[in-house]
Amino acid sequence: MRLPHVSMTDGVDVAVVGIPFDTGTSFRPGARFGPMAIRNVSSLLRPFHPHHGLDVFEQLSVIDYGDAGVIPGNIDRTYAAVGDTFGRLAGAGVTCVGLGGDHSVTLAELRALADRFGPLALLQFDAHGDTWDEYFGERYSHGTTFRRAAEEGLLRTTSSIQIGMRGSLYHADDLRAGEELGFQVITCDELRALGPQAFAQAVSERVGEWPTFVSFDVDFVDPAYAPGTGTPEVGGVTSGEAVTFLRALGGVNIVGSDCVEVAAAYDSPGEPTALLAANVVWEMLALIAVYRRLTNAPSVQA
Amino acid sequence: MRLPHVSMTDGVDVAVVGIPFDTGTSFRPGARFGPMAIRNVSSLLRPFHPHHGLDVFEQLSVIDYGDAGVIPGNIDRTYAAVGDTFGRLAGAGVTCVGLGGDHSVTLAELRALADRFGPLALLQFDAHGDTWDEYFGERYSHGTTFRRAAEEGLLRTTSSIQIGMRGSLYHADDLRAGEELGFQVITCDELRALGPQAFAQAVSERVGEWPTFVSFDVDFVDPAYAPGTGTPEVGGVTSGEAVTFLRALGGVNIVGSDCVEVAAAYDSPGEPTALLAANVVWEMLALIAVYRRLTNAPSVQA
Amino acid sequence: MRLPHVSMTDGVDVAVVGIPFDTGTSFRPGARFGPMAIRNVSSLLRPFHPHHGLDVFEQLSVIDYGDAGVIPGNIDRTYAAVGDTFGRLAGAGVTCVGLGGDHSVTLAELRALADRFGPLALLQFDAHGDTWDEYFGERYSHGTTFRRAAEEGLLRTTSSIQIGMRGSLYHADDLRAGEELGFQVITCDELRALGPQAFAQAVSERVGEWPTFVSFDVDFVDPAYAPGTGTPEVGGVTSGEAVTFLRALGGVNIVGSDCVEVAAAYDSPGEPTALLAANVVWEMLALIAVYRRLTNAPSVQA
Amino acid sequence: MRLPHVSMTDGVDVAVVGIPFDTGTSFRPGARFGPMAIRNVSSLLRPFHPHHGLDVFEQLSVIDYGDAGVIPGNIDRTYAAVGDTFGRLAGAGVTCVGLGGDHSVTLAELRALADRFGPLALLQFDAHGDTWDEYFGERYSHGTTFRRAAEEGLLRTTSSIQIGMRGSLYHADDLRAGEELGFQVITCDELRALGPQAFAQAVSERVGEWPTFVSFDVDFVDPAYAPGTGTPEVGGVTSGEAVTFLRALGGVNIVGSDCVEVAAAYDSPGEPTALLAANVVWEMLALIAVYRRLTNAPSVQA
Amino acid sequence: MRLPHVSMTDGVDVAVVGIPFDTGTSFRPGARFGPMAIRNVSSLLRPFHPHHGLDVFEQLSVIDYGDAGVIPGNIDRTYAAVGDTFGRLAGAGVTCVGLGGDHSVTLAELRALADRFGPLALLQFDAHGDTWDEYFGERYSHGTTFRRAAEEGLLRTTSSIQIGMRGSLYHADDLRAGEELGFQVITCDELRALGPQAFAQAVSERVGEWPTFVSFDVDFVDPAYAPGTGTPEVGGVTSGEAVTFLRALGGVNIVGSDCVEVAAAYDSPGEPTALLAANVVWEMLALIAVYRRLTNAPSVQA
Amino acid sequence: MRLPHVSMTDGVDVAVVGIPFDTGTSFRPGARFGPMAIRNVSSLLRPFHPHHGLDVFEQLSVIDYGDAGVIPGNIDRTYAAVGDTFGRLAGAGVTCVGLGGDHSVTLAELRALADRFGPLALLQFDAHGDTWDEYFGERYSHGTTFRRAAEEGLLRTTSSIQIGMRGSLYHADDLRAGEELGFQVITCDELRALGPQAFAQAVSERVGEWPTFVSFDVDFVDPAYAPGTGTPEVGGVTSGEAVTFLRALGGVNIVGSDCVEVAAAYDSPGEPTALLAANVVWEMLALIAVYRRLTNAPSVQA
Repeated sequence: MRLPHVSMTDGVDVAVVGIPFDTGTSFRPGARFGPMAIRNVSSLLRPFHPHHGLDVFEQLSVIDYGDAGVIPGNIDRTYAAVGDTFGRLAGAGVTCVGLGGDHSVTLAELRALADRFGPLALLQFDAHGDTWDEYFGERYSHGTTFRRAAEEGLLRTTSSIQIGMRGSLYHADDLRAGEELGFQVITCDELRALGPQAFAQAVSERVGEWPTFVSFDVDFVDPAYAPGTGTPEVGGVTSGEAVTFLRALGGVNIVGSDCVEVAAAYDSPGEPTALLAANVVWEMLALIAVYRRLTNAPSVQA
Repeated sequence: MRLPHVSMTDGVDVAVVGIPFDTGTSFRPGARFGPMAIRNVSSLLRPFHPHHGLDVFEQLSVIDYGDAGVIPGNIDRTYAAVGDTFGRLAGAGVTCVGLGGDHSVTLAELRALADRFGPLALLQFDAHGDTWDEYFGERYSHGTTFRRAAEEGLLRTTSSIQIGMRGSLYHADDLRAGEELGFQVITCDELRALGPQAFAQAVSERVGEWPTFVSFDVDFVDPAYAPGTGTPEVGGVTSGEAVTFLRALGGVNIVGSDCVEVAAAYDSPGEPTALLAANVVWEMLALIAVYRRLTNAPSVQA
Repeated sequence: MRLPHVSMTDGVDVAVVGIPFDTGTSFRPGARFGPMAIRNVSSLLRPFHPHHGLDVFEQLSVIDYGDAGVIPGNIDRTYAAVGDTFGRLAGAGVTCVGLGGDHSVTLAELRALADRFGPLALLQFDAHGDTWDEYFGERYSHGTTFRRAAEEGLLRTTSSIQIGMRGSLYHADDLRAGEELGFQVITCDELRALGPQAFAQAVSERVGEWPTFVSFDVDFVDPAYAPGTGTPEVGGVTSGEAVTFLRALGGVNIVGSDCVEVAAAYDSPGEPTALLAANVVWEMLALIAVYRRLTNAPSVQA
Repeated sequence: MRLPHVSMTDGVDVAVVGIPFDTGTSFRPGARFGPMAIRNVSSLLRPFHPHHGLDVFEQLSVIDYGDAGVIPGNIDRTYAAVGDTFGRLAGAGVTCVGLGGDHSVTLAELRALADRFGPLALLQFDAHGDTWDEYFGERYSHGTTFRRAAEEGLLRTTSSIQIGMRGSLYHADDLRAGEELGFQVITCDELRALGPQAFAQAVSERVGEWPTFVSFDVDFVDPAYAPGTGTPEVGGVTSGEAVTFLRALGGVNIVGSDCVEVAAAYDSPGEPTALLAANVVWEMLALIAVYRRLTNAPSVQA
Repeated sequence: MRLPHVSMTDGVDVAVVGIPFDTGTSFRPGARFGPMAIRNVSSLLRPFHPHHGLDVFEQLSVIDYGDAGVIPGNIDRTYAAVGDTFGRLAGAGVTCVGLGGDHSVTLAELRALADRFGPLALLQFDAHGDTWDEYFGERYSHGTTFRRAAEEGLLRTTSSIQIGMRGSLYHADDLRAGEELGFQVITCDELRALGPQAFAQAVSERVGEWPTFVSFDVDFVDPAYAPGTGTPEVGGVTSGEAVTFLRALGGVNIVGSDCVEVAAAYDSPGEPTALLAANVVWEMLALIAVYRRLTNAPSVQA
Repeated sequence: MRLPHVSMTDGVDVAVVGIPFDTGTSFRPGARFGPMAIRNVSSLLRPFHPHHGLDVFEQLSVIDYGDAGVIPGNIDRTYAAVGDTFGRLAGAGVTCVGLGGDHSVTLAELRALADRFGPLALLQFDAHGDTWDEYFGERYSHGTTFRRAAEEGLLRTTSSIQIGMRGSLYHADDLRAGEELGFQVITCDELRALGPQAFAQAVSERVGEWPTFVSFDVDFVDPAYAPGTGTPEVGGVTSGEAVTFLRALGGVNIVGSDCVEVAAAYDSPGEPTALLAANVVWEMLALIAVYRRLTNAPSVQA
């Protein structure tokens, strides 16, 4: 999006932060190059959002903060580094949008933001719940993130929804494992049946004004639209539908978000996955602008 | 699916058999590497099927029987070899699921199974009827399989349906050429209009309890979802729709099936076609398990 | 489509003309190899059109006229060369179907055809209006074609429709910029809401019997279906839907058409974009045949 | 090379003929698209040959004769069709340069040319001798061509050389199996040790003025330079070395030649294999021109 | 190389400048994404150069100045913009290293630098001389750059060498066309025969202390090593040899340089061309550092 | 190589073991799919080795033992699991050949084998010494393996050689860091200067009869030949040269070996890197057979 690359936070509303890390990946690695791929193709995006009727970069001062200092092969030290970056930005009043990286990185983001905002509402768009207790015997991986987050009290699960679950399972209760933790679960089939309007209604009822984190795993979308990802599942929504469901979040109070699991080496030559992810980030920015417009919150810029 | 590779058939319910052969292909070859591609990516599948509510591998003892001994360049000798393998397995009471290979191989499978079960009902998911009399002057090719099968008395055409035909034709009557042979033809447009429920009804009326062979050519699905195939046709269903139509076969008595025409060299880097095919095979296995549950047929395993 | 490559125009109804030019491209170049890619894969097409119920090549004498003599790097001289070719063909009573090339080439085609037919109705299938006044300060590029065409009086804008606009914009009024020029604009969302039948009605009302140019930019279709293009936008229609909307033009008097922006280097290995474009061209040919059948216009061939 | 596509043979010196056939392939198929790939990239070639100091297309009238009428899946009928084409051209005094296709097609070419010229000298550039008696039990395949040719008396083996053999073998005597049939065998290691000059000498001594067929399998070259082929072997020469060895054939009386085994689907995106093959064909044409210059043979053109 | 992205020139020795422009390309476009590809992979490079025995970034203050403001489709306005950037940097005493873009951009660089330094010595590593008078009738393109530069008096041709010419030609005198303009021409074959040491000697004699521009077209290298380029020619040197020849320039007074013609869309998945180009740039930087060490020229940094 | 997949060790000489792990990777991940890629393409290999003059699989009983039980994301637990597997096999008198995985896995192999054989001689073919003390602050990674191995006393460094180092460095002493640890270092330039014969001599003098581990990192070879790897360096040897250098190890007493760093997602479509790695493994097996022949050691098989 041709954002200025800046490391100062004065007068900044939103910072896009790369998290080039994929040690938490179980199948196809490569999400460490997700931030690069998303940035490369993001120059195709333009500032005005016709659905919401606003110029995103007029409403918000957005910067590219560069990458958090990850450590390949070490998830604990990476969590600390990502937490540092998000903590510093949140402390300066800047809303963070993370570019994954695999879904393990979201735990570090949530820790930093919950530290500032208290337990957050979560809207997780994903083919998988990522609520296993262990994966290959590991407690921290891209398959355990949201169980850990719930256990650590980072989430207000009663205000949270997992959206898009589908595919084959290890056990009968995997699909709705999030419900035991207190999340609402809307499977992919249920989401299609709801449609965008009823979905917006459901979100509004569940989340309300609560400070919310929106986490978008690109495998929420069908592999025909997002082939470049680590754990693809057939039968997902189209990218057009994904965008429509995101636009339904018009009144949500987003205090942080990310878009994860872009594994560039598996993307098609035309890079549809990176393009989708860039659009998802752009929709996130627009949602943040919409909420400020709704609440008359002065942007830092203004 | 991390199946054990076994060549014994005691206590086995279902055997997956590779048929790495593509001499019958008219346009893009490469289906000989279909079995390898499908096996490679099948490790993404997990055992529990949430729609049917069963653990496939708990219900059924499934093995990977390896590949049939095909002869590149010689369709007659390959038919003999495939027939041998399928005959031996069927004789041992094992249900076979073939991994193609181009669609010519299905004739050999049908010969072996009709030998045991008599004329079979056929459910053929495919963009093309494959009912030409000759192709480039050849009587055996991937475009003539089902005319040959009908002529040889391997099929109970009055219980059979061809599903998904679309695209440009050589002659006006190609689209419904199957009807002359006695098949019911549901074109892709008609299938979409029907929807899964009416389709299930149509299948149930046509097929009933008859021993059935389900043949799934991945070009049934749109090239956006299954680009790695020999004769793609625009305008097909999505992989999600394909899965939904397969799930509608819940009560069918499947005595054999295959998934064919995965031409790995034309697949996208993320291998969506192989992933779709692996899912199709998994749905086949689930359907076999569902039927046994319905009929209380003891699995060999139990 | 295995067309004869002929440079004589006697007894010819329609000529397919390659325009291997992409100097007008703003983002990803490569449309200069569009004609080669479309021709290579067009051998998959067969002559009979089941929807319209006619054999295209029996109804029409169609030739492959080869490529217009473009000049890489020079848009003015290329316009002259393309204009020459189209003018000569139109002068001989041959309907031209251009294979782009980027969307800048359409201006040259329109100039030649308007010279013969007067201002044309336009049906433009496209994600973008291509109605900027300048792009990077240039007045001739793939983003300014239809403003230039309107300004030059080549179009009867009151009979013209732009179809499929979507995506992020530079300014609030970009989406409907065509309306200022007199075009009707049907955005992608509006088109989906209309459906094929109401769309056919809208076209019929707007265009009537007027001599019409149909310009199809493959980015009208979603990048999952047409990844090999210069300026992809998420959220487009499927290739099946695109074909259905084209079939709704059954009574339109097409005097010229093109299919543009196939950037082969960005296509997936299975070449879905080239395959889609070949199908679009085939649908164009069928529409020309349909109109002649309707109007009893003798084809040159007959 | 932007050759005219002509099917008349008056005044023609050399015809390039595509043979899009790969049914004889044992491992990776796809050589059926070799002719298309070579033609597509051949536009990069220019007419003047600086090493030999002549303008190839000034010296020779060269046409693209299109493709022989192969039958996918049937090697016998394909042999008949290719033989027909080559016989007709040879009968009209036209030198043929075949674009494979897999190496099985050379047998058909040799049959047609030996019919006219008597037993031919052979210069075979190849990683493999292709002298098995059977392959998968088949007597006609890309691995048996030169044993069959020798048995059928098509070759003057005492004037023939196989060049470039390398790689792992089935049996100890495979590497020099050609010697039993009377061929000289120069392995890849021996060729490197010889160098171009001594190689030229060896060719001159062995072949002399005898009418010669030059068959170039692109797997003669290392997979780094020619990755798009069916049976790659590591450790081959570079494309620069290959060209140098070809240029050493300056005085050979070439009455036919081919370049085979370009499997386009396995080529890298930059198409180095097709580019190499186009260069090989161009070197063949130059060698034919050189011989005519040497012998003052009037070209048909002159 | 993880360079700081800076737009100030105080205390800067060398600035790397992207020139994302490919309107001057005759065959495969895409060099506009060369700068992005080179930057992406340049993070693999480390600071210490073992051959020259120095830490490049300790010796020199190097910045990434971003991209010059090119105008796709307009070569004249792009020349002005590139000239501006290079002129401004040269005026501030900063040595420029351009990342092409196609080879047409070098003319703009030379104009700016000759304006400051007077006619420059040129060392051009390239498969093609790029000395045509016109290409497709155009006087400014990637095939005419060095004739224009000589005509405009930007080069001291008597101190200049073209290195690496090879491949088929349009006319007999193309290979040595540079000689008419006063350049020395060392063809690829001659270069190999010379070897690095004699080459260094030849350079030293020809160039001496003269302010020199080094222009490196990646097609100098064989397509096996640099497949991602617009006009590949078989038979080039390896990347290892290329690096060795560059290292032979240890005492040359480089006042500017570029590395051009990286067409990323044609690169292999492992991006060998971009990696080679990044190494070429790194060798250029090392050569600049070597010369300063030799001449005791204080770097700005020191 | 169509090896039997067996998990019993009776009568087995050599076991090939996959180690699908890449958590130790610093740049491009994906070596976890190295074993799959090598196995897939290994069917191209045949049993007889013409250089050594023996049938590898006649001399040795070789099995495919499947994969060691790695844990993605956890290097310590993976080391334990790999150590277990190698320890069990070595305990049963089976020689292990590992298929990496990244180069971090070699430490676990060396621990298990040193446990049985005492400190081992090492022959490491690699572009990088992998002797950093820490990488991103981590003591265990693919960049620290051989420092750790030396520190842990697993290697007899006075009998060990590192071969092939090249490329840019972090510090002046990186290239020869192995020498401080006691290794001999032969850089890539030095190796080329030596040639195979002198290299064989150097190995023989350094290693003698000592039990030796041969570790082959595919980045030893140039990226043109092995593009699919995590940390490519331009300027390496060709695959033919690599094979020749391996063949020079004819009398070495190999008690274990591996081939690592095949990152399949970055390989070219023709899979040259996997093919090279399969050949390297085959050369390793041949070397083991050669030594047994030399020493009359009865193979288990005999």
